[in-house]
Amino acid sequence: MAHVIHERKKLLARVRRIGGQVAALEKALEADADCTDVLVQAAAAKGAMHALMMEILSGHLAEHVAAEPDEARRTDQARVLLDLLRHYAR
Amino acid sequence: MAHVIHERKKLLARVRRIGGQVAALEKALEADADCTDVLVQAAAAKGAMHALMMEILSGHLAEHVAAEPDEARRTDQARVLLDLLRHYAR
Amino acid sequence: MAHVIHERKKLLARVRRIGGQVAALEKALEADADCTDVLVQAAAAKGAMHALMMEILSGHLAEHVAAEPDEARRTDQARVLLDLLRHYAR
Amino acid sequence: MAHVIHERKKLLARVRRIGGQVAALEKALEADADCTDVLVQAAAAKGAMHALMMEILSGHLAEHVAAEPDEARRTDQARVLLDLLRHYAR
Repeated sequence: MAHVIHERKKLLARVRRIGGQVAALEKALEADADCTDVLVQAAAAKGAMHALMMEILSGHLAEHVAAEPDEARRTDQARVLLDLLRHYAR
Repeated sequence: MAHVIHERKKLLARVRRIGGQVAALEKALEADADCTDVLVQAAAAKGAMHALMMEILSGHLAEHVAAEPDEARRTDQARVLLDLLRHYAR
Repeated sequence: MAHVIHERKKLLARVRRIGGQVAALEKALEADADCTDVLVQAAAAKGAMHALMMEILSGHLAEHVAAEPDEARRTDQARVLLDLLRHYAR
Repeated sequence: MAHVIHERKKLLARVRRIGGQVAALEKALEADADCTDVLVQAAAAKGAMHALMMEILSGHLAEHVAAEPDEARRTDQARVLLDLLRHYAR
């Protein structure tokens, strides 16, 4: 349980940092900042968002698939992951 | 010029929507929401962030590469795009 | 077992089709074909290769994680999948 | 021109190497090889295919967008690139 709480704290810290990146991107767009800077900021925020998604997905796979004692539930949860990956990875 | 301003408004609307998605994700993590819901929200925010990056990249390519009269500058700006793609696409 | 054999046949058909796409791409490059055509062929082959990887990954997740009775093995196999995704998805 | 020919030789070497990877993957599937090995091979072939696509795309951007003297053609060719990226990157 302590493990899960520790994980959640790390995820929260990550999501807050991304919130900051998105707010900075909004400000840069409002201020009509240099286009290359805006692009680099957008790409960094996207990279951070992808890393966060992978972190959550990794926790899901560990907790709700690998550690789940019921095979039918494992199969269901594995399908959730695959559907997401089909949609959001290329 | 009106075109650029219109584009910027659309980008701002997009980035604000993403700000809302990230805030909702933070709340879901704080409330210890259902793991699948959190994962789906994170994936949707990542998808939106990717689409925003592509939109900015598309504007950059149109404005600072295709419409740029100076060839040396076009080459420089094209390189910026390629570096980003090498980093943030797979 | 019949299921696994059927899956393997489908994967083999896919990998052979990709082999054909790669051979056609080689010919197009040798013949100095139109650059846009070469690019479109390369992108299509990459898309097909990604789809094949996802198919194999999906089978791996179903067979070696969800259907595996031993939890330690499930955890190991889940880690293999995550390492791959960290490397090959963005 | 010598530059283009040198580039083409490099691309041909790459595409032949990928042809070899795909043939090895086919053999591994036929031989019912260890699932993790098959998965790693498929992921490596996909990574190589992506790198090849990026190389061709990079050449296209340099030659048919940045170095193209006609603005209308630059705009057309930039659109080809964006359509591909929308389809094959996430």
